[in-house]
Amino acid sequence: MTRKLILDLDTGIDDALAIAYAIGSEQAGDVELIGITGTYGNVSVATGVRNALAVTALFGRDDIPVYPGIDRPRTAAEPLPYEPGPGARRIHGDNGIGDMAIPDSPRAAETTPAVDFIIDAAETYGRDLLIVPTGAMTTIAEVCRREPGISRLVGSITFMGGALTVPGNVTPGAEANIAQDPEAADYLVRSGVETTMIGLDVTHQAVLRRDEILPWRQAGTAAGDFLAGMTDFYIDSYAHTQPEHAGCCLHDPLAVAAVLDPTLIGTLGVNLRVDLDGPWRGRTIGDRAGGRLVDPHKTTQVAVRVDVLRFKQRFLDRVTALAAVR
Amino acid sequence: MTRKLILDLDTGIDDALAIAYAIGSEQAGDVELIGITGTYGNVSVATGVRNALAVTALFGRDDIPVYPGIDRPRTAAEPLPYEPGPGARRIHGDNGIGDMAIPDSPRAAETTPAVDFIIDAAETYGRDLLIVPTGAMTTIAEVCRREPGISRLVGSITFMGGALTVPGNVTPGAEANIAQDPEAADYLVRSGVETTMIGLDVTHQAVLRRDEILPWRQAGTAAGDFLAGMTDFYIDSYAHTQPEHAGCCLHDPLAVAAVLDPTLIGTLGVNLRVDLDGPWRGRTIGDRAGGRLVDPHKTTQVAVRVDVLRFKQRFLDRVTALAAVR
Repeated sequence: MTRKLILDLDTGIDDALAIAYAIGSEQAGDVELIGITGTYGNVSVATGVRNALAVTALFGRDDIPVYPGIDRPRTAAEPLPYEPGPGARRIHGDNGIGDMAIPDSPRAAETTPAVDFIIDAAETYGRDLLIVPTGAMTTIAEVCRREPGISRLVGSITFMGGALTVPGNVTPGAEANIAQDPEAADYLVRSGVETTMIGLDVTHQAVLRRDEILPWRQAGTAAGDFLAGMTDFYIDSYAHTQPEHAGCCLHDPLAVAAVLDPTLIGTLGVNLRVDLDGPWRGRTIGDRAGGRLVDPHKTTQVAVRVDVLRFKQRFLDRVTALAAVR
Repeated sequence: MTRKLILDLDTGIDDALAIAYAIGSEQAGDVELIGITGTYGNVSVATGVRNALAVTALFGRDDIPVYPGIDRPRTAAEPLPYEPGPGARRIHGDNGIGDMAIPDSPRAAETTPAVDFIIDAAETYGRDLLIVPTGAMTTIAEVCRREPGISRLVGSITFMGGALTVPGNVTPGAEANIAQDPEAADYLVRSGVETTMIGLDVTHQAVLRRDEILPWRQAGTAAGDFLAGMTDFYIDSYAHTQPEHAGCCLHDPLAVAAVLDPTLIGTLGVNLRVDLDGPWRGRTIGDRAGGRLVDPHKTTQVAVRVDVLRFKQRFLDRVTALAAVR
């Protein structure tokens, strides 16, 4: 049976690259992308769902369903859906995909809520199901609340987020996805659910340079133009905000690559918590409470090593192949 | 040739236990303790040197020389030697060794400064020399300034300090030894010198319970009474300040054990820096600057795993043997 993949995205430039990587992996026979759920962070749920629909349509994959997820933290005082601030808009553009104009999909989002879709898929596909959350952890945390045994059902929950051995990217402690909803992330890592964390420890090593995406532009296709233009925007924004990288970080694609081929990463087992207070809010760190530091059973495998060359070659192969045909 | 060991201590209860472990290891034929240098933190340099002399005398080892190290941070605005605050006094007692009264040594400290002694020993013993700093990193940082190639000369520089995957113990970021002189620690880990870090990641797993030290008291010796009384004080202070441990942490003895037998620990290579500013001051964290995150050469091996049972058995064997005969 082919493995099944659900991406829980705040689509977002690197989320769109993760979609491209996943579809490219499907063409390589590695996995079937059975659905995208919409969370928030880089963009609102509404914008992210719109983008996921538009991007899959552009890639000729109007068959991939998109499900709206929870649109704000459970703990939010504000009674309105999350909207991105100036920081996220600077990095991902006002429309979330580098201000590239691509047509709306002819399709609408599904009416089934994301949480229901994920739990149904876990029951249907069991160990063949891979779940990759790459935005605010609100929806996946709700899945774990409703189905605490989820990780014994499915093959993997591999999330992009957090920073254990390196500083955060929104504060010295906090990575952006965790910072969006620290309470949800804390629930996720302390719930007993088994996860793999693809954090800044490894994604800050997976840097894409401008010269590497030339084949996308040279493809002369709508998909290639979109991918190249969007990624140019992302590299430009990195040049302003994080010039030390000399390129852009492939955060979300690395999470997809790692769940499909865990040999790309090396992990350290840690029982994590998320700091909720003061300047530390949003930091992922080892949990000393309740004997969790000395417990030999670790519920999170934190990626601390990545085979950057092999990952990037696979990323470029798969996304370039996708760019070539549409 | 027997391996040679220098301990750079702020003696301190767990420092005194580290001396006991080192002398016990010498009796087991594992190493020769060629000198103790005095830094500060748990106590002032003056008190730490006094304690190191008194403790070695009590253990019948008046032959081990003790050298005074640098007595305050290079960056200190205050023109006086460091004195411990109420926090350190609560944990280690007013006299630094759990308020246990033991006689002053008949000996005085050496007149050679600690930095000169360490550099001379490195030149004399080369790869056979093991250096274990377990207090403020001021003296060892000065050694590295004076002799930047020190780690290519000696066998190991294995320091107790820092916290990478767990919170700190003086702030949510900072461990006590690093917090005493963050600039010195930052110099140490960014100087290119190769080090092994024994931080709270592992020492918070190495917990000694009260029932485990009964053999020391039952030995009926002066050394046994001292070791048991001092450790009781330490366990009592942990019960007040960090009751979650249900015992006391064997910080400094673990560093000695790990340098003598690296199979007791598992490490992760990381190029570290130390945060110097704001609430993060004193945190040890991976350094993204200057390509150090992606550099495959890592200058610090951070202990992230420890074989607690094997370490504690060896610790109890060696210290109990020492308590039995004096």
